[in-house]
Amino acid sequence: MTPPQGMVAPGQAIGILGGGQLGRMLAVAAAQLGIDVHVLDPDPAAPAARVAARHIVAAYDDVAALAEFGEPLQIATFEFENVPVSAVEHLARCGVTVRPGAEALSVTQDRKVEKEFLGEIGVPVAPWHPVDDPASANAAQSELGGDVVLKSRRMGYDGKGQRAMASADDAAAAYEDIGSVPCVMEQKVDFIREFSVIACRGVDGATVSFDAAENRHREGILRESIVPAGIVAAAAAAGRAAAVQILDRLQYVGVLAVEFFELSDGEVLVNEMAPRVHNSGHWTLDASDLSQFEAHVRAVAGWPLPNPRRTHAARMLNLIGEEALEWRDWASRADAHVHLYGKRDVRPGRKMGHVTLLTD
Amino acid sequence: MTPPQGMVAPGQAIGILGGGQLGRMLAVAAAQLGIDVHVLDPDPAAPAARVAARHIVAAYDDVAALAEFGEPLQIATFEFENVPVSAVEHLARCGVTVRPGAEALSVTQDRKVEKEFLGEIGVPVAPWHPVDDPASANAAQSELGGDVVLKSRRMGYDGKGQRAMASADDAAAAYEDIGSVPCVMEQKVDFIREFSVIACRGVDGATVSFDAAENRHREGILRESIVPAGIVAAAAAAGRAAAVQILDRLQYVGVLAVEFFELSDGEVLVNEMAPRVHNSGHWTLDASDLSQFEAHVRAVAGWPLPNPRRTHAARMLNLIGEEALEWRDWASRADAHVHLYGKRDVRPGRKMGHVTLLTD
Repeated sequence: MTPPQGMVAPGQAIGILGGGQLGRMLAVAAAQLGIDVHVLDPDPAAPAARVAARHIVAAYDDVAALAEFGEPLQIATFEFENVPVSAVEHLARCGVTVRPGAEALSVTQDRKVEKEFLGEIGVPVAPWHPVDDPASANAAQSELGGDVVLKSRRMGYDGKGQRAMASADDAAAAYEDIGSVPCVMEQKVDFIREFSVIACRGVDGATVSFDAAENRHREGILRESIVPAGIVAAAAAAGRAAAVQILDRLQYVGVLAVEFFELSDGEVLVNEMAPRVHNSGHWTLDASDLSQFEAHVRAVAGWPLPNPRRTHAARMLNLIGEEALEWRDWASRADAHVHLYGKRDVRPGRKMGHVTLLTD
Repeated sequence: MTPPQGMVAPGQAIGILGGGQLGRMLAVAAAQLGIDVHVLDPDPAAPAARVAARHIVAAYDDVAALAEFGEPLQIATFEFENVPVSAVEHLARCGVTVRPGAEALSVTQDRKVEKEFLGEIGVPVAPWHPVDDPASANAAQSELGGDVVLKSRRMGYDGKGQRAMASADDAAAAYEDIGSVPCVMEQKVDFIREFSVIACRGVDGATVSFDAAENRHREGILRESIVPAGIVAAAAAAGRAAAVQILDRLQYVGVLAVEFFELSDGEVLVNEMAPRVHNSGHWTLDASDLSQFEAHVRAVAGWPLPNPRRTHAARMLNLIGEEALEWRDWASRADAHVHLYGKRDVRPGRKMGHVTLLTD
């Protein structure tokens, strides 16, 4: 079953940098296509490792481990955007093609670079300023006016490394509170709704996208995604066009998630993007004829990429921390599809699983 | 997430004896519920092992290996009926509950015992006789008359260990050709259709069943399953009632598959049964709100067992031997769900994957 160069055939393997629940769901999708998964993750108890053919327990910047990981592989991907770009570059030197590539990763792991990229290609974002010291924090606050959010440029997720501020708050103190690391300050957007678009681009440049999901966050963490989203048709079209434009400009291969704000005047702004499968796309496992995980594996493996079709209206609820203790109640409901990630320790704020309710 | 005794919680593991494609699809279903899988299989390249948290490479009758396999486990199951009953009994002595149990296994791995069991509980089968030597082969042939099939009592699957005979054929020679092993001789049934019912019983004794599938075989191997089956309603009801009766009489936990013949007068005879997930239930992965694999894992793990609902009409095609080389063509069809088992060597008659076509 030898495939063309740059493709992965059934019986062969792909590598995944990162072994959390996203990696686990990718591994399951790969397994269904007859593709094995090798995981590199420093955590010996990484959820994805327990459904992988091979697990290298090592730091992402361990070049010897990367070489060992890459040795039997032709193609690899990653499940989170905080993998060092140097790891992707090292794998490339070892002859492993990483999809999406180093450019997509470097653009999306730095909020400043990401906003500059979006600005260059004409995709609108909220007004923002870079912040590199207490003085520029104060200057950005005056310039933007009103409520703002200070965010570290790197390593932020689930609301970490962020401070919301009113105009009377001390911006320099917030900057120090975040750790005096490079930041961006964004004007706080008075949105009516948050939504996301998950899109995927194949090695042949063809793009497909999933229906937009409406997202509800609490304390910076996604709690709920709903399809179809309650957004106006023009917002959905704008979101989709922006996602496809980003994919094409980055010569991207795989799944990309773009989060948007819908404003009351119908305008759509990008909040942020993630170069990977995304929590707001988990509904696709149960309410779409193609899941985001299978789409990503297909794209990365060089397989054909059918256009996904939503089969149900759905509501995806995250099970966070102790909410997962109610797994038996969810598992007894006929309308609920229960997904648990195999994490042994329940910790506050930890994503333990999710439930998809089919609502039509 | 500690569960009651005899139950498996997310983050814990179940064991599977056997690591073929059925074990692989069980492992994937378990992964989605947050349950790890440990596999015991003598083949280092067993398809299920590559999605399992642990693989013991050993023969099924290796008692030291069974003890090592069972040590961290509370619950185990098997993916094929030719696991020795002694292995299940040894695991029980090691404190591991095997579901379904030794009785279900011993009944279904011997065609004579199976037919006697079905006779005792009043479930009809085709006329048959035991055959233990050349003389009883000749006698059975005379007694039954017309076309018959001689089958080895044990270790038969995919048409292996079977000889179809007309009344003029030499029954004693056929018996020797099969290997002079204990056999049964069955009257060849003039059926109009073959179908199967897959049913599942939980630890609480509740039973659920999937819609019957119509099955088409070629050279003793299942080629195609179609839902809904073209059988009359009474045949479907009879098949379902028989399956539930078998489950209850064996105090069975897990999925059971029962294959039937539908006769022209509406009568329904059991062909054979399998104490496991079954090829004719693969359609449930794509055309049911609960798959047979998730149902089995839920039952074995002591989880609630919702009643499955078929969501589509479907046609499941096996990809056998070189048919799997057409995987890219199947993968490019929007109406096809492609499943490949990760087997590296294509061999004639080997089940390499399957495709589910949604036909409504």
